[in-house]
Amino acid sequence: MPYETSDIRRIRLIAAPFAPLAADGSIRPDVIDRYATWLHAHGVSGAFVNGTTGEGCSLSVAERQCIAARWAACAPSGFRIIVHVGALALPDAQALATHAQSIGAAAIAAVAPSFYKPDAQALAGWCSAVAQAAPSLPFYFYHMPAMTGVQVRMRELVPLLLERIPNLGGVKFTHEDLFDYGCCVSRWGDRLEFSYGRDEALLPALSLGAPSATGSTFNLWPEVYLRMISAFRQGDLVTARAEQERARTLIDLAITHGGMPAMKAAMRLVHGIDCGPCRSPLTTPDPARATAFATAITGAMS
Amino acid sequence: MPYETSDIRRIRLIAAPFAPLAADGSIRPDVIDRYATWLHAHGVSGAFVNGTTGEGCSLSVAERQCIAARWAACAPSGFRIIVHVGALALPDAQALATHAQSIGAAAIAAVAPSFYKPDAQALAGWCSAVAQAAPSLPFYFYHMPAMTGVQVRMRELVPLLLERIPNLGGVKFTHEDLFDYGCCVSRWGDRLEFSYGRDEALLPALSLGAPSATGSTFNLWPEVYLRMISAFRQGDLVTARAEQERARTLIDLAITHGGMPAMKAAMRLVHGIDCGPCRSPLTTPDPARATAFATAITGAMS
Amino acid sequence: MPYETSDIRRIRLIAAPFAPLAADGSIRPDVIDRYATWLHAHGVSGAFVNGTTGEGCSLSVAERQCIAARWAACAPSGFRIIVHVGALALPDAQALATHAQSIGAAAIAAVAPSFYKPDAQALAGWCSAVAQAAPSLPFYFYHMPAMTGVQVRMRELVPLLLERIPNLGGVKFTHEDLFDYGCCVSRWGDRLEFSYGRDEALLPALSLGAPSATGSTFNLWPEVYLRMISAFRQGDLVTARAEQERARTLIDLAITHGGMPAMKAAMRLVHGIDCGPCRSPLTTPDPARATAFATAITGAMS
Amino acid sequence: MPYETSDIRRIRLIAAPFAPLAADGSIRPDVIDRYATWLHAHGVSGAFVNGTTGEGCSLSVAERQCIAARWAACAPSGFRIIVHVGALALPDAQALATHAQSIGAAAIAAVAPSFYKPDAQALAGWCSAVAQAAPSLPFYFYHMPAMTGVQVRMRELVPLLLERIPNLGGVKFTHEDLFDYGCCVSRWGDRLEFSYGRDEALLPALSLGAPSATGSTFNLWPEVYLRMISAFRQGDLVTARAEQERARTLIDLAITHGGMPAMKAAMRLVHGIDCGPCRSPLTTPDPARATAFATAITGAMS
Repeated sequence: MPYETSDIRRIRLIAAPFAPLAADGSIRPDVIDRYATWLHAHGVSGAFVNGTTGEGCSLSVAERQCIAARWAACAPSGFRIIVHVGALALPDAQALATHAQSIGAAAIAAVAPSFYKPDAQALAGWCSAVAQAAPSLPFYFYHMPAMTGVQVRMRELVPLLLERIPNLGGVKFTHEDLFDYGCCVSRWGDRLEFSYGRDEALLPALSLGAPSATGSTFNLWPEVYLRMISAFRQGDLVTARAEQERARTLIDLAITHGGMPAMKAAMRLVHGIDCGPCRSPLTTPDPARATAFATAITGAMS
Repeated sequence: MPYETSDIRRIRLIAAPFAPLAADGSIRPDVIDRYATWLHAHGVSGAFVNGTTGEGCSLSVAERQCIAARWAACAPSGFRIIVHVGALALPDAQALATHAQSIGAAAIAAVAPSFYKPDAQALAGWCSAVAQAAPSLPFYFYHMPAMTGVQVRMRELVPLLLERIPNLGGVKFTHEDLFDYGCCVSRWGDRLEFSYGRDEALLPALSLGAPSATGSTFNLWPEVYLRMISAFRQGDLVTARAEQERARTLIDLAITHGGMPAMKAAMRLVHGIDCGPCRSPLTTPDPARATAFATAITGAMS
Repeated sequence: MPYETSDIRRIRLIAAPFAPLAADGSIRPDVIDRYATWLHAHGVSGAFVNGTTGEGCSLSVAERQCIAARWAACAPSGFRIIVHVGALALPDAQALATHAQSIGAAAIAAVAPSFYKPDAQALAGWCSAVAQAAPSLPFYFYHMPAMTGVQVRMRELVPLLLERIPNLGGVKFTHEDLFDYGCCVSRWGDRLEFSYGRDEALLPALSLGAPSATGSTFNLWPEVYLRMISAFRQGDLVTARAEQERARTLIDLAITHGGMPAMKAAMRLVHGIDCGPCRSPLTTPDPARATAFATAITGAMS
Repeated sequence: MPYETSDIRRIRLIAAPFAPLAADGSIRPDVIDRYATWLHAHGVSGAFVNGTTGEGCSLSVAERQCIAARWAACAPSGFRIIVHVGALALPDAQALATHAQSIGAAAIAAVAPSFYKPDAQALAGWCSAVAQAAPSLPFYFYHMPAMTGVQVRMRELVPLLLERIPNLGGVKFTHEDLFDYGCCVSRWGDRLEFSYGRDEALLPALSLGAPSATGSTFNLWPEVYLRMISAFRQGDLVTARAEQERARTLIDLAITHGGMPAMKAAMRLVHGIDCGPCRSPLTTPDPARATAFATAITGAMS
């Protein structure tokens, strides 16, 4: 059974949790305990904290540290906390990295600084400076060109990172370019983790050997992906495709209803995890739209 | 064995042949007979004639008709000839479509008119007008936004095409967006053919149920893909991934050495099929670079 | 009076006329005589035939030749006919160029072939091959990256064109990049004509020394620009700015009401020049929208 | 003399100073006193502190405050200090705004938060929240879509800002879209300041009524622009164009030699203002390249 041989590791889902905010816009770490428990109970293996879904870049350094610390403190046993420390200012990213190490996070990750759009060499230097601030934790580069505009190919960046970062852990790969993703998994997948980040194309990534996935929709309908992964591992592509189609339909509903802010509202309406409104510049959907989205996905998830 | 159930059809490779040109820049249809025989002998199931690789848009209507007629005349039994008829001017596309039907082509295809960049509704109207000019042939829309800049999603276009085009055959899908591709295969794959066109990501497309692939690199190293498909159909993902990695490495070599013009030269140097230089605005690589590319891929193909 | 010294030549307006089509979609050259007379009577100095506004790329070679011939035949004395001959296929562009010379056009112009997106060197070679087909006419490169996606800078292309094209006339510069435009006018403006093509930014181009302008809105409200140019030449920037603001407002109305197809309809409704519908893939606005646009601009033009 | 009527105000140059860094990467505010004196002595009217040229987004909040405070403290009489307070995190931008007010800055400015790319409504809300944190200072929106990817048109944003921000001062408009710029100056130029930010197209902006300019190259060759402005105000476009061409040539040299980091090095080599290296992710040019650039511009400035 070649499948079992090639996919010997458990394929993990890592959720990117929403930012826990109160109605007045301040952070509200008290919701995190229940949130972590809920994710763990629904088959999710870890949390990618303060990332894109977590509005990390809209939070101050102090707020990010407070949220990260709470996730680290309440993580169920075996539940991985990856703290996103990316920031435009290198001192901020370094301070966040050092803090993440101090609170016992499992790993750190950093998105490219997106204002000046570095090339591969400059980006590798920047990543190295961040990784050095948390030398005992694995460092993941968070590749998301749709948000950053930084178009460096990972098959060009990874060799530069390997030269410079002894604690390199891998890449959170949030991009539809499976040419580049496949190169990475084939070339360095035995040493590094390339966690795929486009939930709508996870089955194709699995075909290339994805060891894990990190994304926003694992907050809302993790079971769809768990069923897909299970079917894939058993060689049942008919079922796997049907579950991926279900996920695509759900994601299209999310896009239609307002994107990530709609998902944040649905996390409260559907699953009872209340992370409050979004912070400006994101806007919170009005209640009618949020309810329409929650209703639409409730029927479509199973 | 779920694989056999889901992939009951043979997965076909369709090559997009190079334009047969003489040293003086005129067309040279005499090379087509050998070309067709070679492709057929190497496991390729058909030819997508006058497409992007075939420099179709750089040829006059008369030249395109002459080349298409030769391919139709010399096609081995069972070898499908799909004639690309896309053109900026609708009368040209229609004339090419009518001609393709008259010469016994198996199907026609048309890329979006790329100068005015139509939206989905306007594009569906345009496709319908082309398809009506060859009513007895299946019509394929050729989706290649990297070249055309037309960003219409296929999951939005296909319903419009289904309403308007009784002879709709499917889509040649040359785009890395497997979200959109998966939607199409899942929703209309039982009625329409979505032939995948990014050779470097064919394995992921297979995981979603791709019934066929249409691309340029099937001219040069079809065996790599045939081995990959065979392994995939047997559930041997380890081998399939290794062959996809081989294809990616070869494609990166092609990109590095000058892209499609380098591949055209290699078709002559490696396989003895001489299609001559490229026509302006494409440029022909100098002999040293062409030879370097041919040498590089010769070692890497098997 | 430094102005008179620097702008000694008359600043000319060249209109890009609409394609004359009948209700059944065929071309209708009979409208051209009245059209040319109308433009001439309203202060327009020439016509850029079969360009973007003229749907040149949506017409067959034969249709383009027929339209060009009619413009050349009926041009009032001193009224310049520049025939756009750009096409994806070089033989088509060359045939159009040779024809333009045979009918007595004043000049030819060609947009970049946009499918393969040549670099500067390849583009210069292509232009040279077109220009050679009409050696006794000035050749203009038609720079419009918003439509073609060809991003070559003119300050890099012009030196290459000067080396290769003895009959180089200049550039129709339809791009908002006034950095590049200014370089061209300063460096080669004494030898070549850089005709500006963004009507909404003509006053800024005049400040840099634009000798002429070629655009679509000179069909509809040429008087606005004539007043602006006259004021500019007299050093009356207050009036020139007010007329440019009037033009911007009119252009925003055009954008809001459907773009070029709306302008084509308005040419009939406001000025009585009936060029019929647009050809697919462009779509013709419904009558209510066309009337709304015509009404809106009628009030705003003077 | 219509010019005098229309351009009654003095046209001001505001330089965007480089970040003062030491060799070890820490900030070095001690250089600011000389820097301010130098700019003032060379005809520059103010400083746009911690902006794109000032690497503001690469500095921590504390570092930005320290630098801003020094500029405010040492500004020559009449020299305007505009503090850029834009940041991805709203609390950071607000803290910087409040601080800027406390140190006696003349105005604040904020670039769009670029990670989530707000639409016009969301952006107006975000700007309002920043402006409220410094209610006694004019607020400028800093429009620079090439860096932020936020493509909102100013003629759509300004009305929303006017509704929400009583202390709105205007827009720093760093974009080549003179269609949009002209709309703003014509419609709200009597109430708001639209300071143009593309030094290479300042003459065209002057033709539209630009009251001031804010840019990076006013650090290095302010005299070129002062001569251009003076000539423009006297109606001498021949001289104005020649000076704009000189500026374009210098800017092309900067682009060729490494962009902003090369300019930072030249500020030391040519003018003796030592702001040290650039901070990662920007990279500092090697000494040979910096010297080559300094030499090249020294000859070309006058």
